[in-house]
Amino acid sequence: MNKITNHLPTAELQALDAAHHMHPFTSDGALAKKGVRVITSGQGVWLTDSEGSRIIDGMAGLWCVNVGYGRGELADAAARQMRELSYYNTFFMTTHVPAIALAAKLAELAPGDLNHVFFASSGSEANDTNIRLVRRYWDIKGQPERRVIIARKNGYHGSTMGGGSLGGMPYIHAAGGKIDGIEHIGQPHWWAEGGEMTPEEFGLLRARELEEKILEVGADKVAAFIGEPIQGAGGVIVPPSTYWPEIQRICDKYGILLIVDEVITGFGRTGNWFACETFGIKPHIITIAKGLSSGYQPIGGSIVCDEVAHVIGNADDDFNHGYTYSGHPVASAVALENLRIIEEDGIIDHVRDVAHPYLAEKWHKLGDHPMVGQTSLVGLMGSLQLTPNKATRAKFAAKPGTIGFRTREHCFRNNLIMRHVYDRMIISPPLVITTEEIDVLIDRATKSLDAAYAEVKAEGLFTEA
Amino acid sequence: MNKITNHLPTAELQALDAAHHMHPFTSDGALAKKGVRVITSGQGVWLTDSEGSRIIDGMAGLWCVNVGYGRGELADAAARQMRELSYYNTFFMTTHVPAIALAAKLAELAPGDLNHVFFASSGSEANDTNIRLVRRYWDIKGQPERRVIIARKNGYHGSTMGGGSLGGMPYIHAAGGKIDGIEHIGQPHWWAEGGEMTPEEFGLLRARELEEKILEVGADKVAAFIGEPIQGAGGVIVPPSTYWPEIQRICDKYGILLIVDEVITGFGRTGNWFACETFGIKPHIITIAKGLSSGYQPIGGSIVCDEVAHVIGNADDDFNHGYTYSGHPVASAVALENLRIIEEDGIIDHVRDVAHPYLAEKWHKLGDHPMVGQTSLVGLMGSLQLTPNKATRAKFAAKPGTIGFRTREHCFRNNLIMRHVYDRMIISPPLVITTEEIDVLIDRATKSLDAAYAEVKAEGLFTEA
Repeated sequence: MNKITNHLPTAELQALDAAHHMHPFTSDGALAKKGVRVITSGQGVWLTDSEGSRIIDGMAGLWCVNVGYGRGELADAAARQMRELSYYNTFFMTTHVPAIALAAKLAELAPGDLNHVFFASSGSEANDTNIRLVRRYWDIKGQPERRVIIARKNGYHGSTMGGGSLGGMPYIHAAGGKIDGIEHIGQPHWWAEGGEMTPEEFGLLRARELEEKILEVGADKVAAFIGEPIQGAGGVIVPPSTYWPEIQRICDKYGILLIVDEVITGFGRTGNWFACETFGIKPHIITIAKGLSSGYQPIGGSIVCDEVAHVIGNADDDFNHGYTYSGHPVASAVALENLRIIEEDGIIDHVRDVAHPYLAEKWHKLGDHPMVGQTSLVGLMGSLQLTPNKATRAKFAAKPGTIGFRTREHCFRNNLIMRHVYDRMIISPPLVITTEEIDVLIDRATKSLDAAYAEVKAEGLFTEA
Repeated sequence: MNKITNHLPTAELQALDAAHHMHPFTSDGALAKKGVRVITSGQGVWLTDSEGSRIIDGMAGLWCVNVGYGRGELADAAARQMRELSYYNTFFMTTHVPAIALAAKLAELAPGDLNHVFFASSGSEANDTNIRLVRRYWDIKGQPERRVIIARKNGYHGSTMGGGSLGGMPYIHAAGGKIDGIEHIGQPHWWAEGGEMTPEEFGLLRARELEEKILEVGADKVAAFIGEPIQGAGGVIVPPSTYWPEIQRICDKYGILLIVDEVITGFGRTGNWFACETFGIKPHIITIAKGLSSGYQPIGGSIVCDEVAHVIGNADDDFNHGYTYSGHPVASAVALENLRIIEEDGIIDHVRDVAHPYLAEKWHKLGDHPMVGQTSLVGLMGSLQLTPNKATRAKFAAKPGTIGFRTREHCFRNNLIMRHVYDRMIISPPLVITTEEIDVLIDRATKSLDAAYAEVKAEGLFTEA
């Protein structure tokens, strides 16, 4: 076989990809017909493809490249660690320095008494760990019947059988099933489901579904509640201000464990190390991944409070769970260096004091666009709700997602990576984005919205359901 | 906080580890009291700990460091890729060259028409993928009721909720539950369960449990069978020669999909690229991880046959599954370089022609030890069955695992990493082990067995149940 490199013609790379590479969340047959886009390099917020196009990445990869692409310090950290200790496990009474150092650093950064880290290679794996942690915790506490975990519809917690079951995406449940003992309550998505209520009223209503569900299941059967501070893959849905305080109150009242999935929101995304600080949430467990290594390495984990870690650690039996790559030394060394960069470069200050305020002004102005009904932005994650009628918050008559997909396709052509979730456009750029780059992002987004709007109007798709 | 490096005193590293790091398959409280061993560097088959001890690694980390520790080419490949494209995803109609090149290479290496790769970051994640793949396959084929996956007791397929459910370890099921639609049949463990039968008779009997289970569940409800060619974490249990041909016959007869978990056995471990070749198995899906990158990077995946990939790829809907780090560019680039090393250094020939024959002679001689009842070795994975009575294959009167644990502790003190599974000692050294290093391994193993034997005899533990 010829050596496969960036220097092959795009068509040849596309053919090889179609022949051998199965893509996540994709119809490979349809993709093969259309032709995949081949990304070849990245620097800062910029990607280059095999045709030489320069693309601005409004999604930080998949919500993860917080420090931007191409940081040489991270490459050096990986190579150094690989030469010293390329792998060792943390089973069987052994450990190594990168895992110790990263665990200690995370304990320092995480709020409250979240002082203990169980490592995984992804947010999915970490959420599977969380299912086992909370069920094991109650088992040791003499309440083995406390097994139910309550999650939200349209939440996202990964794609393992456990993570996918916690998530509230029916299309994932359809692909292989759902584990037992997971219940879902409604999401705090005011735009889509808030009707005539104010956002604050609706936030309380949706939070109180947790209490209803606890009473329905039986308070003595509920192990934990899990939620993302801001739903990410669900469409960057920022909950009304009343939501999280009420969730916290209910968890406290019934003594159930609170798991906050910070896979997307952690490590500066919302202008703090963790969105728990942004929203004033006090969790027992935080799920982490993505920004932990800025996506340079597959690594995730659970940051666990004293009480849960001590109960599990002091049991007579082992906690029978873990992964070959839990605390992988190379991934840990890179994550540690990534945290150093975030800290020493003042990246979170940049988000809070520079990038967010500058982007916010322009982002909210996109609300004037005829197709945009609502704009949301917390730190550097934002959404634009597309609608044919801002006053009534109407849906399009076209199949949900049609207009969002069209808009994304225009972004793609305009060399802007912006995702859509149904008819909602979302961004989550690298945290190092400059004001000049924000101008480019907004410019291309506006151009793409205009093009999509002209197209859907011309085709008669700009109509209410 | 002080910078945490290899230069800190062991006691300080141990204290930090105990304060913040939750270990897989461990009682952290007990470990903290005992004091963890801190591994600081690795080269070839050798590890060094924070006390300066030189340890020979008879387990290749956790069955994964096939090319040995400290290969600079892999560090260079990681750093090069990290500088060029540190991350990109393969969702949303994009791809990148490392994922394409690795998928194409795996298609070239894998037997038959296993031509398509779905990437994950671990064997656990890949087995969760497999559950979704086979259920989705039958769903598209118009047989949605085909959901049951049959696996084996004492099999190991990872530690996610899906992987742990496929595995047949009750202590993992106890830690958080089991997913629906997984059935278990008996394992082909002749020593422990074969009674008066010959191994060949017993192998057939255990394989035929698959047919019984299919008929019990209903042939139209079974999606797949999954098994490791040699049970790894179960104790390096090499099935009788009659076992796999009969499993294959039964899968073929009922048209159910055959998933072979090669996470441990793949990439040279048994003297071929895949153990499917060693055992003559024709699977529809192979699970891979570990040796794929020699453990230098967290990466795993599923190699899928044409039929399954085409049915899923040509469906109208997306396959709604995948991971942020599916086909991670750095992990893929390192894996590709690792496969180049295995190929160009002739490592599999070394296993087959040099290391296996040399080790086999010495390994089987350990069968003369008064405590060793059975020796097994395929390629470079082997086991020693400890017993108080070789003729009757008796168990020890002590709690299962007591003697194995004692023996492992002696290995540890003698600077040999050898694991125990209950009262079975197992090895799986780096594939690059030399004959001189095999001498060291055997020497330390003998010394450890002798020490354990003397101790258990003196304490009156060398007695039959």
